[in-house]
Amino acid sequence: MASVGYVKAQQMRFEQDLPLQSGAVLRDYSLTVETYGTLNADRSNAVLVCHALNASHHVAGVYEGQARSEGWWDNLVGPGKPLDTDRFFVIGVNNPGSCFGSTGPMDTNPATGQPYGADFPVVTVEDWVDAQARVVERLGITQLAAVLGGSLGGMQALCWTLRYPDRLRHCVAVATAPNLSAQNIAFNEVARRAIVTDPDFHGGHFYAHGVVPKRGLRVARMIGHITYLSDDSMEAKFGREMREGGIGYSTQDIEFQIESYLRHQGDKFSEYFDANTYLLITRALDYFDPAKQHGGDLTRAFQVARDKKFLLVSFTTDWRFSPTRSREIVKALVDNRVDVSYAEIDAPHGHDAFLLDDPRYHGVMRAYFDRIADEPVVTA
Amino acid sequence: MASVGYVKAQQMRFEQDLPLQSGAVLRDYSLTVETYGTLNADRSNAVLVCHALNASHHVAGVYEGQARSEGWWDNLVGPGKPLDTDRFFVIGVNNPGSCFGSTGPMDTNPATGQPYGADFPVVTVEDWVDAQARVVERLGITQLAAVLGGSLGGMQALCWTLRYPDRLRHCVAVATAPNLSAQNIAFNEVARRAIVTDPDFHGGHFYAHGVVPKRGLRVARMIGHITYLSDDSMEAKFGREMREGGIGYSTQDIEFQIESYLRHQGDKFSEYFDANTYLLITRALDYFDPAKQHGGDLTRAFQVARDKKFLLVSFTTDWRFSPTRSREIVKALVDNRVDVSYAEIDAPHGHDAFLLDDPRYHGVMRAYFDRIADEPVVTA
Repeated sequence: MASVGYVKAQQMRFEQDLPLQSGAVLRDYSLTVETYGTLNADRSNAVLVCHALNASHHVAGVYEGQARSEGWWDNLVGPGKPLDTDRFFVIGVNNPGSCFGSTGPMDTNPATGQPYGADFPVVTVEDWVDAQARVVERLGITQLAAVLGGSLGGMQALCWTLRYPDRLRHCVAVATAPNLSAQNIAFNEVARRAIVTDPDFHGGHFYAHGVVPKRGLRVARMIGHITYLSDDSMEAKFGREMREGGIGYSTQDIEFQIESYLRHQGDKFSEYFDANTYLLITRALDYFDPAKQHGGDLTRAFQVARDKKFLLVSFTTDWRFSPTRSREIVKALVDNRVDVSYAEIDAPHGHDAFLLDDPRYHGVMRAYFDRIADEPVVTA
Repeated sequence: MASVGYVKAQQMRFEQDLPLQSGAVLRDYSLTVETYGTLNADRSNAVLVCHALNASHHVAGVYEGQARSEGWWDNLVGPGKPLDTDRFFVIGVNNPGSCFGSTGPMDTNPATGQPYGADFPVVTVEDWVDAQARVVERLGITQLAAVLGGSLGGMQALCWTLRYPDRLRHCVAVATAPNLSAQNIAFNEVARRAIVTDPDFHGGHFYAHGVVPKRGLRVARMIGHITYLSDDSMEAKFGREMREGGIGYSTQDIEFQIESYLRHQGDKFSEYFDANTYLLITRALDYFDPAKQHGGDLTRAFQVARDKKFLLVSFTTDWRFSPTRSREIVKALVDNRVDVSYAEIDAPHGHDAFLLDDPRYHGVMRAYFDRIADEPVVTA
C-alpha cells in the first residue's frame, strides 16, 4: 500500500485566549497541524486523529529529505489503508503543552519573556479537545466524520463526544480507558518523581541552565516502556537472554538483553523529549475522568453522546489499559442504547498493539471506516 | 497468640573465606543471626527462615525498649503460631551484602581499609545458601527440619534442596519463581538505574562523600512497591481518591492519595536502606536460575532433590511472581515424583500477601508445619 508521501506541517496561530479547565488561560499560542487527503465538497469526510504521550501531528507520510521520518500511525493512515486518505481528509494536531511544534513549556511565556518551563499552565484532555475544535473550525469543518485516537488519544476521542457531540458523527477509541486506575497513576507518579528529583530539572526551569534532566527522563521512559509491552511479548523477545560473553557478575553493567533494550529506549527518549511536557501529559492522563462530574456514573456521562456512533477496540494482553476498561465504556454506551461496535483483539503485544498492524485489528478498523465512508451524510 | 517476646540478635564471625559463584571470595565476614524456640535433644527441629530484599535475620519478636520493632514475619512465627516456636527452633540469618548487620557494602573492605561500597563482591542466591549453611553448621545442626522463605527467600529455600539436599527434610517456598521473567528483570533494572544515575551515588562510593543517593532509592522503592501490590488492592485502597481540597492542577504536588502513599514509602525506605545493597540483592534475584546449568530443564535441576518434601504456596493476584511460576516448580517436582503440596491462595493483596495473615494461607502453613513436627525423624 502506498504512503501519503511527502507531507508538510503547518503552523496555526491563535490570538484568542484558550480558557483552560484550571481557570488559567493559554495566551497567544500556535498549534502544529498536518492534513492528508482532500476535504470533499460538502466537508463531510474529515477525520481528526488525536495523539498520545509520545506522538504528534505527524500521523502519516514522510518529510522530504528526512530518512526514517514516517508518521507514527503511517501503517493505518494512507491511500488504500484502513483509514483511507483517498476517501477521508485526515487531520493531525499537536496538542498544546507537547514538544513537537505547538506552544509548549520550552516556548516563551508572553507574561515573562522567558520560557514557560514549569509555569506552562496545566492542560487537560478537555483543554486539548477545545484546542483541536478551534483547528477544525479554522479548517472550515462543521462536523467531523470521526475522531480517532489510541490510549490517551482515545480519551480525547471519547471527550469529543461529550464536549462537542454535534461536531462529530463517529468516535473510534482504541486501547483506552474511562480513567486511570490507581496503578496507572502510580506508574505516572514514579516517572514524574524521577524527572522532578533529577538535579538537572531545576524546578522545571532547566532551559535557563543549559541542561536537560536526562537521568529522570531515561528512568521515566524505561518505566513507561515496561507498561507498554506485555509480560509475554517481553518474554518472547528477550526472555533471560544475556549479553554476549555471558554472566559478568556486575550490578551496574548490562547483563541481560532486556536491560540493553530498555537503556537504549531511555537514552533515545531523553535526547528529544521535553521533561515539562512529560509531566503535563501524564497529569492530563491522571485527571481524565468524565464520570466524575456525574457522581462516578459513566452511563450518565455518556447520555449526551447518545446519537453518536462508536467503535471501541482493546487488546487481550494490554495490562496498561486492559479490555476490562474498554468494556466499562461499552457498558455505559449500551446502557444509553448507543450504536457501539466493540472488538477485543487477541494480540500478544500489550498496549503497544494499537500502533502495530495486526491484520485482525486493521481489518476491524478498515471495515468501520469503510462503513463511515459509505453511509449517507444527512446535513442539517 | 503470644509473641516470642524479647529477642536479641547475635553476631557470628567467620574467618574462613566464603568462596562465591563469581570466583571472588568474601574475606573475614560476620553474619547476624537470631533464633527462637529451643533446639531439641536430637537437633531435629530446626527451621531456617530466609529473607527477601527488604528484611533480615529479625524474623519474629521485638527488641526490648524499641517500639514497633516486631520481626517481619512475626504473624507466622511464634508460640502457637503456624510455625510454632514451642515445637520448632527457628533461625533467621541476615544475608551477606545486606544492610542489617551482616557484612555488607558499608563495612570495611579488609583489602583497602575503606568501605566496600560498589566493590562489595556480587553475591548470588547460591552464595547466601552457602553462608547460611555455615551458620547452621556452627549451631551444631546436621539436618534442618525445613527451610522456609517467601519471594527471594523462597528461591533460597529451593536452592537449599539443590545445593545441600542432605541437610534438610522439607522446603517451604512461598510466592516465588524458578527464575525472574524479562519483565521482573526490567523492573529491577529501572530501579538500579534510578540509584546508579543519582549524582549522590558517586559510583557506589557515596559513604566517603557523606551523602546517600536518596532520590534514586525513593524511585526504586516506589517502583518496587507498585509490583508488590495487586492492581485490585491498590484500586480498593486508593482508587482515584484525591488529597483533601480536591484537584489542584499541579504536576509536582500530590493530587492523588496513591501518590502520597508511594512518596511516603519511598521516603521511609531511603532513610534506612543501603543503595549498594539494593543493587546486590536485585542482581541476585536476576541471576537465580537453577535450570540454566541443565539446559533450561527445571525437571533435571530438581532430580537431586528427589527425596525432599515440598510445600509451594502462591497467591492468585500476585503478578510479580504469579501462580504460573509456582506451577512451573510444582511441575518439575511432580515430574520427579517428588512429595509436593501446592496451595494457590485466592487472596487480593498481590505479592505482599505472603507477609499477611490470610487465614487460608496460614491454615495451610500451620497444617504443613504440624505435619513436619509430627513426622518421625529417621536419623542416619
